[in-house]
Amino acid sequence: MIEFAKITTRLVTEFKKILGNNAVVFDDKDALENYAHDETGGEYYSHMPEIVLKPENAEQISKVLKLASAEHVPVTPRGAGSGLAGASVPIYGGIVISFERMNKIVEIDKTNLVAVTEPGVVTNDLCRKVSELGLYYAGYPMSVETSFIGGNVATNAGGSKVIKYGNTAHHVLGIEAVLPNGEIVQFGGKRRKDSSGYDIVRLLVGSEGTLAVFTKIFLNLIPLPGKTVDLLVPFPDIHTAISNVGPLITESKTLPSAVEFIDDTSVVLGSKYNNIRLPYQEKADAYLIVQYEGHDRDELESIYEKAGKALMNGKAMDVFVADNRTNSEKIWRIRRNWLEGIKAFESHTPTGDVVVPTSKIPEIMEYIAKISKEYKVQIPVAGHAADGNLHPAPMKPKDVNLGEWKELSEEILSKIAIKASKMGGAVSGEHGIGFVKKELLKKTKNKQYELMKSLKKTIDPLGIMNPGKLFDPQ
Amino acid sequence: MIEFAKITTRLVTEFKKILGNNAVVFDDKDALENYAHDETGGEYYSHMPEIVLKPENAEQISKVLKLASAEHVPVTPRGAGSGLAGASVPIYGGIVISFERMNKIVEIDKTNLVAVTEPGVVTNDLCRKVSELGLYYAGYPMSVETSFIGGNVATNAGGSKVIKYGNTAHHVLGIEAVLPNGEIVQFGGKRRKDSSGYDIVRLLVGSEGTLAVFTKIFLNLIPLPGKTVDLLVPFPDIHTAISNVGPLITESKTLPSAVEFIDDTSVVLGSKYNNIRLPYQEKADAYLIVQYEGHDRDELESIYEKAGKALMNGKAMDVFVADNRTNSEKIWRIRRNWLEGIKAFESHTPTGDVVVPTSKIPEIMEYIAKISKEYKVQIPVAGHAADGNLHPAPMKPKDVNLGEWKELSEEILSKIAIKASKMGGAVSGEHGIGFVKKELLKKTKNKQYELMKSLKKTIDPLGIMNPGKLFDPQ
Repeated sequence: MIEFAKITTRLVTEFKKILGNNAVVFDDKDALENYAHDETGGEYYSHMPEIVLKPENAEQISKVLKLASAEHVPVTPRGAGSGLAGASVPIYGGIVISFERMNKIVEIDKTNLVAVTEPGVVTNDLCRKVSELGLYYAGYPMSVETSFIGGNVATNAGGSKVIKYGNTAHHVLGIEAVLPNGEIVQFGGKRRKDSSGYDIVRLLVGSEGTLAVFTKIFLNLIPLPGKTVDLLVPFPDIHTAISNVGPLITESKTLPSAVEFIDDTSVVLGSKYNNIRLPYQEKADAYLIVQYEGHDRDELESIYEKAGKALMNGKAMDVFVADNRTNSEKIWRIRRNWLEGIKAFESHTPTGDVVVPTSKIPEIMEYIAKISKEYKVQIPVAGHAADGNLHPAPMKPKDVNLGEWKELSEEILSKIAIKASKMGGAVSGEHGIGFVKKELLKKTKNKQYELMKSLKKTIDPLGIMNPGKLFDPQ
Repeated sequence: MIEFAKITTRLVTEFKKILGNNAVVFDDKDALENYAHDETGGEYYSHMPEIVLKPENAEQISKVLKLASAEHVPVTPRGAGSGLAGASVPIYGGIVISFERMNKIVEIDKTNLVAVTEPGVVTNDLCRKVSELGLYYAGYPMSVETSFIGGNVATNAGGSKVIKYGNTAHHVLGIEAVLPNGEIVQFGGKRRKDSSGYDIVRLLVGSEGTLAVFTKIFLNLIPLPGKTVDLLVPFPDIHTAISNVGPLITESKTLPSAVEFIDDTSVVLGSKYNNIRLPYQEKADAYLIVQYEGHDRDELESIYEKAGKALMNGKAMDVFVADNRTNSEKIWRIRRNWLEGIKAFESHTPTGDVVVPTSKIPEIMEYIAKISKEYKVQIPVAGHAADGNLHPAPMKPKDVNLGEWKELSEEILSKIAIKASKMGGAVSGEHGIGFVKKELLKKTKNKQYELMKSLKKTIDPLGIMNPGKLFDPQ
């Protein structure tokens, strides 16, 4: 196994020369602590960095990586720290590069429909800014209000709108990146087509900081739809709910912007937490939330009428339409506050993130119910029904202590993830692998695993980029 | 430089054992000749294969690649042969794998909105088949009637609908591939999200047969729009035409499915060839063809009214609307038959394929005009205005002989391609690099070139996969 070098005072001086004194955090335990964890939760997923650097541009990062390469010090890029698999946690210590000061929207190019941003821009800030110009950034992670664009790109973030707009990879036209050797290279850019050689842009998307450091992102924009309608649809059981997703799309002849799913346990907890009641709460075993986006009220009306008909034919218990912001907000509150709602009752609730082909959701839900019974652990589930991405959230039973719970919850989530993979799915739909799921990656993509490792070795031969993520250091 | 082994009679016997006698073409010059070229044109871009194999499944291909690896024989996968950069031409001889017998649509999964096909399916056959089910495959290369799905994926084919739907990479959910060592691996599949490790699917898309042989493709389907409207819009000059593309999209608040561009020379030649006249033919210097797709006549009407207003504000000479098939066909005929129209007057007309950010089209068009004057060569241009992808087509002057013309036309197209790259574009938008453009790739993506080469070396260490494409053999 690789041995990494430690940060010396000589290196600290070098970094201060490159970045300025204020951009270097060292020897301040409280300050460093902020960079020791992400949202994965649980003390046991934390690890202190030796030093945190806050660069302002690609040139500084280039110099940092040259030094890190020369000295063999690990480098962990960090966005907002809103990740859920530990990708930004510096488990081998060394340098954390924080993008908090690289938070500029460099350009919104209305002619070419491209936004150019630094990695530290908060997703929602970009969404708001482009919407003022009648434009739309269609990437939509559920963490839109906190996550950074760079983090979205690093994990290939998904969210609820993937069925209509695709995941983050679909929106990235280019990336300026610093390679581990310090070279600054722009891959892609404002062009919308490129069949000249391998698509390295998309190799970088989802690479979780293990290949290069992003310094600029080129994003596709589309016209702002402007209008939305939301449907809340209770179902007697999960199977009926999910069997509606396909026909809903084909019969309404329209891609919804979202079809979200919440199970009955989630609704019970969520309605207590949010102090609201959903219609049919006693009788329904599952809910879908369906959203359509468009630019015209009449157009949306005709779509949701068709959708409503399809859903009622598909044995929905009822279809509730919200076409104004207040009603819409009510519908979405339980889904948006889903995890908070659960954590209010049991804070030690890790979030799984499996994906299956949509048609397999009932099967994986049955499996989750079986595991829940077997382990005597409550596992509420919510997720993105239209793309088969589910988040099972096992809640710590009162009589299990924290040390045991780490093992137990990992065992539960692993079983579910492996089952999902066997159904034609994968062990992460949108959160990434980080270090929490690397054993699962190895187990479920074993043929691809060696290939991925060799790609890593090719681009980062010294292994300094975010070591211990996706794979163990080679 | 690598030395490859020749096909021996012993190997021929082995291949016949694997594939059956009828699936092996050897020693039959006329039959082999069909596999010696693609549509790049010009004898000088041809090269004879030593043997052509026509497998029926992945297992046969796996055995072939194991043998080829062991004996160090080059392998060139070939789709319909409709390529325009020589990617399927076996310039080092050896084996051509033709997919003509792997032409089955394996499954159309209406629930998951996924089509699974073998690589040899003709694009239009898939389009037709899924449309019967109310579904739509949104990949749309201009060669839709001849090209194979496998070839589309291998070149990351574009076409006219990229502004709305993205290029082929956007539609590929998974690829089953045989690696050079004979291993059969499925990357991706029916799942719509996957943040577990590097995106090897998209590394394979556009790799032009240099990394692996595809044996199955998983494609995303969407609801069939069903209705279209086309606008023919003459402009006094190119600059005015192109400056309309951005506002057209933002003001109509809708992504057109296509915005095509043809210049005046193309119109003159095309109208002669097709024996039709376009309105304003004497006065217009450029035309846009704008297409909208939707599922509702009223919706489309409201969109094209907004679009028409935006275009007239943008100094269009007029806006002609075609909302039935006959009129629409008239509008598209000159664009669809563009190359045939030119070749009817001068058959030795290679097709360039550059891409620039849309806003740079006027600048690259000025450069093309300058080159045309300088070299005294007519260069009609058509292309995809909405995504900046242009096809300049230099026509051989009468007094230049064929040998000189190869050099001269390559020089002209190279200059244009390099200029495009300097404007933030690339030397191929959709046709690929093949062997015709590999020097251009090296020149214009020099920082990425070594990285691409090392990725090739990692996945195909023996260099048997389509050698001489993208790079010289290593």
